[in-house]
Amino acid sequence: MAPVKLGLVGIGKIARDQHLPSLSRSADFDLIAAASRNAGVDGIANFSSSGEMLAAMPEIAAVSLCMPPQARHQVAAEALAMGKHVMLEKPPGATLSEVEQLAGLAASNGVSLFATWHSRHAPGVEPARDWLKGRRIRKVTVTWKEDVRHWHPGQDWIFEPGGLGVFDPGINALSIVTRILPFPIWLTGAELTFPENRQAPIAADLAFAGPSGEAVEAVFDFRQTGLQTWDIVVETDGGTLKLSMGGAKLFVDGEERGLGPEAEYGGLYARFAELIAAGQSEVDLSPLRHVADAFLLGRRAVTEPFVFDPPAAP
Amino acid sequence: MAPVKLGLVGIGKIARDQHLPSLSRSADFDLIAAASRNAGVDGIANFSSSGEMLAAMPEIAAVSLCMPPQARHQVAAEALAMGKHVMLEKPPGATLSEVEQLAGLAASNGVSLFATWHSRHAPGVEPARDWLKGRRIRKVTVTWKEDVRHWHPGQDWIFEPGGLGVFDPGINALSIVTRILPFPIWLTGAELTFPENRQAPIAADLAFAGPSGEAVEAVFDFRQTGLQTWDIVVETDGGTLKLSMGGAKLFVDGEERGLGPEAEYGGLYARFAELIAAGQSEVDLSPLRHVADAFLLGRRAVTEPFVFDPPAAP
Repeated sequence: MAPVKLGLVGIGKIARDQHLPSLSRSADFDLIAAASRNAGVDGIANFSSSGEMLAAMPEIAAVSLCMPPQARHQVAAEALAMGKHVMLEKPPGATLSEVEQLAGLAASNGVSLFATWHSRHAPGVEPARDWLKGRRIRKVTVTWKEDVRHWHPGQDWIFEPGGLGVFDPGINALSIVTRILPFPIWLTGAELTFPENRQAPIAADLAFAGPSGEAVEAVFDFRQTGLQTWDIVVETDGGTLKLSMGGAKLFVDGEERGLGPEAEYGGLYARFAELIAAGQSEVDLSPLRHVADAFLLGRRAVTEPFVFDPPAAP
Repeated sequence: MAPVKLGLVGIGKIARDQHLPSLSRSADFDLIAAASRNAGVDGIANFSSSGEMLAAMPEIAAVSLCMPPQARHQVAAEALAMGKHVMLEKPPGATLSEVEQLAGLAASNGVSLFATWHSRHAPGVEPARDWLKGRRIRKVTVTWKEDVRHWHPGQDWIFEPGGLGVFDPGINALSIVTRILPFPIWLTGAELTFPENRQAPIAADLAFAGPSGEAVEAVFDFRQTGLQTWDIVVETDGGTLKLSMGGAKLFVDGEERGLGPEAEYGGLYARFAELIAAGQSEVDLSPLRHVADAFLLGRRAVTEPFVFDPPAAP
């Protein structure tokens, strides 16, 4: 198959850190244009909006959207209506319903929609899923603690409504959990901690249940300095599995298993190419549904204000 | 078909106001038992829990659950696993995911699950849906204002996490809107007003969009004394439709249309009987999904504390 001509929309941190390097290595896609309000990509055509880009370059067959979720739906709907294949960064939207609408639009226009969960392409995830099959799972403990100032420097959108706060990384954990467990889970209780000056939580404690009394507990915290933790521990009747470093490392009863190299975004673009070739979409909303459930059912606590750059001590 | 032997779980206000009178008139169901922590129903077998009821009376083929949503999942899951048909009051659960799990359980046990939306059975709803078909819709305005002290006296659960606050009535409006509109809508913005001593909102302003730029605006308020309002106005290229009194009255360009009598819960039990006879389930989560979206995307405002019985003035 000839490479699919692609336009990238939203040239921010995640585009530069992940999408551009992966696309430069991809044989499936030919990145020919970018659209961004404030930034550009050297060596390709640049536009200030997706609409301008698609109008000027009708040869673009697919777009990949990397801007914050609050702005994603309109651009995605416009591209799908023009018959373009669309790949969405996580989370796929600011609401569940808008992504459902996009899925319907993709189907009615005969194009592929791919709602990505990059953490599912971490090298330990599929081996973990395979190892858990057929074992009796007792308890799952998720610890996802990182420093928002390091990973999202100055990104105020993350604490705006729809920005998800600590669920922006936490949804990565949920995307892995919902992939590796062989049964569905549902939230039974949550406490969400909001800085008093912010609209999205900075920390969350979640409890889920599974169909045979399995317990899933998750702690998300955006205030972690020093050691960062992205761990999922699964206790079973046949030993304990641990995914560390967001799925990059896998341990069984403390013994590390050999894994392939990290290639999350390479995996996403390979999957997007497969979906386009097969004429299919992939839109699994379960991670975002669990987050929406946490906002719906969560008890709210308020904590001290959060600012990205606290004033220096006098 | 012989009447289906039914057990009713949760004997509170909605059971007495609606379920018991409708069941007494239903030829489809034979109410033979009730389960409730604090109350009973004269003339039938009474139990303090659903589990005791189902263990003692295996002839019960179906259960109808009327307790608050926070407690519904466990009872429903247990009944479905025992091969009982289950009808759920609205909202069908405290989270979306737990209801998805119930739907899977109903399918795997070959029984019917019916997630009810009683307002969809208001007499004006199907005529409104029919009238809107083929008309171009421009704008929908929903006004749902009622006095929580009158309709939910002392029901503190409604302001607990999972109780939905003003979305408890508001979800009725959303259940009608999602039934009468011929296209999907999605939330684009919301402001939720929380009493500073409560975990669920007492008022909400919502904005939704439709696929051709249609605007849907909704105002929910639980603090309305005096005149109560449950109106949905739909402006189209062929006139203006208004559903009033929660769907009990229908007007086109100000002229009232004749409708059948109010029979919401009679309609629900008739539909439940149809589903059981056909071996089908009906679980449309879209109203609850819109509420979850509102909690997810909504901007939060805080207002004065709310108490059900304010102390008398000195």
